[in-house]
Amino acid sequence: MIMDKLSRAAQSKGPVCVGLDTRYDYLPAYIKDSSKSLCDRLFEFNKAIIDATHDVSACFKVQIACYEALGLEGLAAFAKTVQYARSKQSIVISDVKRGDISSTATQYAQGHFTGDFETDLITVNAYMGEDAVSPYYPYLEKEKGMFVLIKTSNPSSGDFQDIDVGGAALYEKVASEVSKWGERFIGETGFSAIGAVVGCTYPSELTRIHSLMKNTFFLIPGYGAQGGTGKEIGQFFHDGICGVVNSSRGLITAHKGKTESDDFSEYVRAACIAMKEDIEKWL
Amino acid sequence: MIMDKLSRAAQSKGPVCVGLDTRYDYLPAYIKDSSKSLCDRLFEFNKAIIDATHDVSACFKVQIACYEALGLEGLAAFAKTVQYARSKQSIVISDVKRGDISSTATQYAQGHFTGDFETDLITVNAYMGEDAVSPYYPYLEKEKGMFVLIKTSNPSSGDFQDIDVGGAALYEKVASEVSKWGERFIGETGFSAIGAVVGCTYPSELTRIHSLMKNTFFLIPGYGAQGGTGKEIGQFFHDGICGVVNSSRGLITAHKGKTESDDFSEYVRAACIAMKEDIEKWL
Repeated sequence: MIMDKLSRAAQSKGPVCVGLDTRYDYLPAYIKDSSKSLCDRLFEFNKAIIDATHDVSACFKVQIACYEALGLEGLAAFAKTVQYARSKQSIVISDVKRGDISSTATQYAQGHFTGDFETDLITVNAYMGEDAVSPYYPYLEKEKGMFVLIKTSNPSSGDFQDIDVGGAALYEKVASEVSKWGERFIGETGFSAIGAVVGCTYPSELTRIHSLMKNTFFLIPGYGAQGGTGKEIGQFFHDGICGVVNSSRGLITAHKGKTESDDFSEYVRAACIAMKEDIEKWL
Repeated sequence: MIMDKLSRAAQSKGPVCVGLDTRYDYLPAYIKDSSKSLCDRLFEFNKAIIDATHDVSACFKVQIACYEALGLEGLAAFAKTVQYARSKQSIVISDVKRGDISSTATQYAQGHFTGDFETDLITVNAYMGEDAVSPYYPYLEKEKGMFVLIKTSNPSSGDFQDIDVGGAALYEKVASEVSKWGERFIGETGFSAIGAVVGCTYPSELTRIHSLMKNTFFLIPGYGAQGGTGKEIGQFFHDGICGVVNSSRGLITAHKGKTESDDFSEYVRAACIAMKEDIEKWL
């Protein structure tokens, strides 16, 4: 089961998830100035980061929006990035947040669990209910997994997720349901192949959600640029919450203002190690 | 404003939205057997349907999942399809149901309102709150628009959307909020550039939502294969609800079992006209 593999990777290599939310601006000049295609320039940046951080991170999260923004060349870079990271035995989360009716979700499952974009885990939006999630189930038996959005890290996440639904917030109701859906897919480490996304920008909510989702491994965005701190994360882990903590901008722009050369990935690696230590010192 | 343009197209050409949820299986043998690339075969199918139906349909909805399922070649066919339909002066809705934090939504907006995938309208999931939707606002002044999911057509849509949130269902709360967000973007026909998706599989819910979203133009999926009927739709329009009604499988597989040749699009055209008449006879 993929969540066994991911939780073990987090244990052995630390809980950092490197977010490859790559934008053209982030590329150092030596890559921007090369004569390669846009796809190859984006990939060269990501490849250097993967090479520099795969031994000090649990996994990579690749945000597809950054590649969709650049059209077909961007998506070719997305495919190459996911394929390369997996070829290095790293675990990859494709952050796609897809959510659609059953027949359509079946297509997304095919798209992201097979073929050009084949990944290990995807993020999923469950607003449409269980039949928007169940088409992914057949893949959970085949070393694939997903993270369902529960309480997201953004400032407006409360608009709907925090609404009172009879003594509980909507996100709590979603947490309980998703936890039930995941019971069929629990691996040997005790985690379900259906994980949950909860932003560390909402610490008390994460604690509450954990109490409703005991067999759940978390994908925790919001560290760094969005405001989450190592102390808070350390406290979560101390309280028995298990998961990986994503940082994107905070890591992959660590070289900005420092170098425009091919030593850039050393700064990214240093930032990754600093983040790992910032969390681990509280354990 | 795009919603003025779309509502006028629905008035003059009828309310049918042709759903290009194209799957390889749907292609007639003469296209499957050609030596063209997968991208070009998918596009040839879509092009023939666009040519055969653009004068009897209000718009096309292209479901990106069907193309993502086929990887980079599939997405190249998606791009060509959207570009071709727009070049024929048809309005295109890219059914992407994206939803993500502000910085990421900005990337999706760039991806679908500019460049290879440039379209007229997209579908959006608002579970993450207004800051997952507001990055699209700058484009609404530039002839772009969106449809936000309110009450979806699938059987499980009630899992969360129907939850009681203090005397109202969650979808009603979402409807009221989205209607407020849309007030700034009302065009000369009285419709906001922020429309709403409500499945016609839930007729009483659609009526209720319309009462909460008076300036809203609707994208109504669920006709045909999913169970919605012309009589129900006719009643909605009679009650003052304005929108386009999508059918995908019911139209683009109309040739199956009848022909495998290049006359296939005549069957799709006939199905499109039959659907238009099935709705209009109740008006």
